[in-house]
Amino acid sequence: MTREYSNISMAVIRRLPKYHRYLKDLLDQETYRISSKELSKLIGFTASQIRQDLNCFGGFGQQGYGYNVEELYNEIGKILGLYQSYPTVIVGAGNLGQAIANYTNFDKFGFSTLALFDSNPKMIGMRIRDIAVHDVDQLEEFIKKNQVRIGVICTPKKVAQDVATKLSEAGVQGIWNFAPIDIKVPEEIIVENVHLSESLFTLSFLLSQEFDQE
Amino acid sequence: MTREYSNISMAVIRRLPKYHRYLKDLLDQETYRISSKELSKLIGFTASQIRQDLNCFGGFGQQGYGYNVEELYNEIGKILGLYQSYPTVIVGAGNLGQAIANYTNFDKFGFSTLALFDSNPKMIGMRIRDIAVHDVDQLEEFIKKNQVRIGVICTPKKVAQDVATKLSEAGVQGIWNFAPIDIKVPEEIIVENVHLSESLFTLSFLLSQEFDQE
Repeated sequence: MTREYSNISMAVIRRLPKYHRYLKDLLDQETYRISSKELSKLIGFTASQIRQDLNCFGGFGQQGYGYNVEELYNEIGKILGLYQSYPTVIVGAGNLGQAIANYTNFDKFGFSTLALFDSNPKMIGMRIRDIAVHDVDQLEEFIKKNQVRIGVICTPKKVAQDVATKLSEAGVQGIWNFAPIDIKVPEEIIVENVHLSESLFTLSFLLSQEFDQE
Repeated sequence: MTREYSNISMAVIRRLPKYHRYLKDLLDQETYRISSKELSKLIGFTASQIRQDLNCFGGFGQQGYGYNVEELYNEIGKILGLYQSYPTVIVGAGNLGQAIANYTNFDKFGFSTLALFDSNPKMIGMRIRDIAVHDVDQLEEFIKKNQVRIGVICTPKKVAQDVATKLSEAGVQGIWNFAPIDIKVPEEIIVENVHLSESLFTLSFLLSQEFDQE
């Protein structure tokens, strides 16, 4: 168990992937050096927010020089655990499961999707990119055999809890849940939810506030 | 312009869809009355957090009675703007766009997807459920003709900003963006992002902290 960064608030952690994304764009544009002020213009956080965030990790900036983009990019990548390997399975091979299986960008950061699983005989045996769709009955065996660390739940709501239970019993460490429920699993298993309706309803709130239709 | 709830923090707003979801489940189970304490057990927020959140809206609880589930569900739905109509288009008819078009649950709350748009001739003319895929060249005309309020961006990163610009110029009020960039649009247009990699990288951070592989 390492908890090197356990003192950092989740609010900061949740901003890191955004830094990581912007730093990658800078590298692609062959920008190797940037001040917190320039970074602030790009990313939309205040320069002091940026300095504060990055100081949590010892801070990489040098007075009068700014940040070394590549160094910062690599360091944030390390902090985010992007230089580890995350054997992953996706349960539910519908459009959403296929969409995620097709995000080749995730592979680059160690999230290798080994298999999809579905209960629909029509799907079983299909291949998404080069990834086969297996019968969900083989889920636990596959996870154990392949030391799968992450299970992605892209199933309908009504089976999501059952899938979550199977995933945890088979030994995944983390679950990325897209089903619109809060799954219950043992507390050592880390769950990250993407609740699309919560995002959409936030949008509708803001729209209804901004643009009255009464 | 109505800003009835403009004094409420976004943190509270972002919790409301979760209340809304749990209250719907309670109604489906024919539970019509619940105390903040019972609701706390279900939803995982503290009872005082719940009372505090719901007090922002005048609070609906009655001492010794608890909350009227249906009343609270309907009120939160109103606050979230879920009794308005949101004509919606989805740009990008790949797996993700199709997945969103297939969320029939969103229709119930006024988000009616009128059309999908794509640039791929193979997709144009297809139907997802009963929704046709149009040529993206017809996007602006369609939005104006149908008073579309929301545009959903499910395109690759490289065209997302161009699509966002077209959507805003054509007159959408809000953009639900799934592309991994921060789109730039006029400030009166409301943008809600779903950045999947930010969610996944948060999971990998927590996994790498919890389960050291060094």
